[in-house]
Amino acid sequence: MTQGTQAGRLSILGMGPGDPELMTVKAARILRESPVIAWFCRHDRPGHARQIAGDLLPPTATTLRFAYPFTTEIAVSDPAYLVRMAAFYDDCARQVADHLLAGTDVALLCEGDPFLFGSAMYVFDRLHERFACTIVPGITAMSGCWSAAQRPMVHGDDVLCVIPGTLDEAALTQWLEQANAAVIMKLGRNLEKVRRALRAAGREARAIYVERATQPQQRSMKLADMTGPAPYFSIILVPGREGAR
Amino acid sequence: MTQGTQAGRLSILGMGPGDPELMTVKAARILRESPVIAWFCRHDRPGHARQIAGDLLPPTATTLRFAYPFTTEIAVSDPAYLVRMAAFYDDCARQVADHLLAGTDVALLCEGDPFLFGSAMYVFDRLHERFACTIVPGITAMSGCWSAAQRPMVHGDDVLCVIPGTLDEAALTQWLEQANAAVIMKLGRNLEKVRRALRAAGREARAIYVERATQPQQRSMKLADMTGPAPYFSIILVPGREGAR
Ligand SMILES: C[S@@+](CC[C@H](N)C(=O)[O-])C[C@H]1O[C@@H](n2cnc3c(N)ncnc32)[C@H](O)[C@@H]1O
Ligand SMILES: C[S@@+](CC[C@H](N)C(=O)[O-])C[C@H]1O[C@@H](n2cnc3c(N)ncnc32)[C@H](O)[C@@H]1O
Repeated sequence: MTQGTQAGRLSILGMGPGDPELMTVKAARILRESPVIAWFCRHDRPGHARQIAGDLLPPTATTLRFAYPFTTEIAVSDPAYLVRMAAFYDDCARQVADHLLAGTDVALLCEGDPFLFGSAMYVFDRLHERFACTIVPGITAMSGCWSAAQRPMVHGDDVLCVIPGTLDEAALTQWLEQANAAVIMKLGRNLEKVRRALRAAGREARAIYVERATQPQQRSMKLADMTGPAPYFSIILVPGREGAR
Repeated sequence: MTQGTQAGRLSILGMGPGDPELMTVKAARILRESPVIAWFCRHDRPGHARQIAGDLLPPTATTLRFAYPFTTEIAVSDPAYLVRMAAFYDDCARQVADHLLAGTDVALLCEGDPFLFGSAMYVFDRLHERFACTIVPGITAMSGCWSAAQRPMVHGDDVLCVIPGTLDEAALTQWLEQANAAVIMKLGRNLEKVRRALRAAGREARAIYVERATQPQQRSMKLADMTGPAPYFSIILVPGREGAR
């Protein structure tokens, strides 16, 4: 850091599930005030968090677009995958740190809530001991989904389990047998495996499928009525006990 | 309904964990536009959701304050408790319905997210078949807590369990043994029982206690360092796997 310069602050902003009106007042304020704005995205996409920000993003801001490296040639289970991703996050953190060291604040935009399955956690882990951070929580995808589908989810003594669809079928089945209320995230290619696990656990009939919640193409239906592939932006809800009126 | 009058819309608004800036832009807008505004509260308190609304609540709005009935003379496990609560929710729903039938929109304010352990679910259950409803998700207490405590919570394949502290000690212990990441809500009088369950499950050392997150008196610490009673507005966090950098 140049002598006498005070380091900038890193603000990690939850942008919610898609509808820009579901940003918090605080995230919208910090976004409008930020000189440097960063976000993650697929190499071939503008980035969902960036899209939600829309024209709240100041036209004069410096932008840092962190495109995930091509990883399809390495299996996620391959240790080389973790090495590659760690190098990627190291590089993102270094770019953010350069601005912070120059005394400039940085806002890092995230889908949903940053600390629930969010990539921003890996940048936070690398920087929080050296720089002041503000974490602005966001509306989670699951809250967006159960609100859009109008399904009260968790009552009284219910335990809610939030389960990644990436688990293997046996583990999924076990979780779904025990949970009072369940949310299954990261569907995509895992849909048919998740469906089998729900069936094995006797929970398929109550399961609700929700796609692109709070976004223009939102749809939701009983999982039993859903055919075809699931996109990345989809969730399954198994509401908790009913009848406790 | 008077002939020719169109019924009003019920908007259920998540108000977030406490900081008014953590309201969504959408909740703030609907709140400002609502002619009738309702909320739940303890009989001897103004109501947390009402406090968060602050002066966004239009001075000309009609207000409905739904004070929970005195219930300390009946145990929660007593069937009479459920009967009493059902009669209370029936009455709340009837008051809301009267306004909707007169063609007036109603906003019902809720702490956190309405469909995660929220009383508004019981009003929704009673009215959603008869009236148009909008559910505006809110920042959950848990997101408020892990953001305030700056604890990344859920990574990769982690399963997150959201557990009410009202469960018995054996059930708590079992859940805490299995969960990769855990949030324990509804602490209050349940704190010492929850602490024993965390110890039995070997999770006490990593547990973080967070009180009044995003509110002026917010504090957080290792659970091991926390002494004294826990207020209603407190949560325990057990972050998921670390080290996946
Ligand atoms: C890497 S996780 C990010 C979760 C996010 N940080 C949160 O707080 O919800 C991505 C998963 O979130 C879910 N998701 C995100 N936005 C969604 C939406 N609008 N509708 C349905 N599911 C969504 C999908 O299951 C997707 O696979
Ligand atoms: C009936 S539940 C309501 C939960 C709310 N609907 C949500 O979405 O988080 C009440 C519990 O939420 C937690 N809680 C609510 N606000 C909190 C805050 N600001 N800090 C810590 N815990 C809070 C406490 O565990 C409390 O017992």
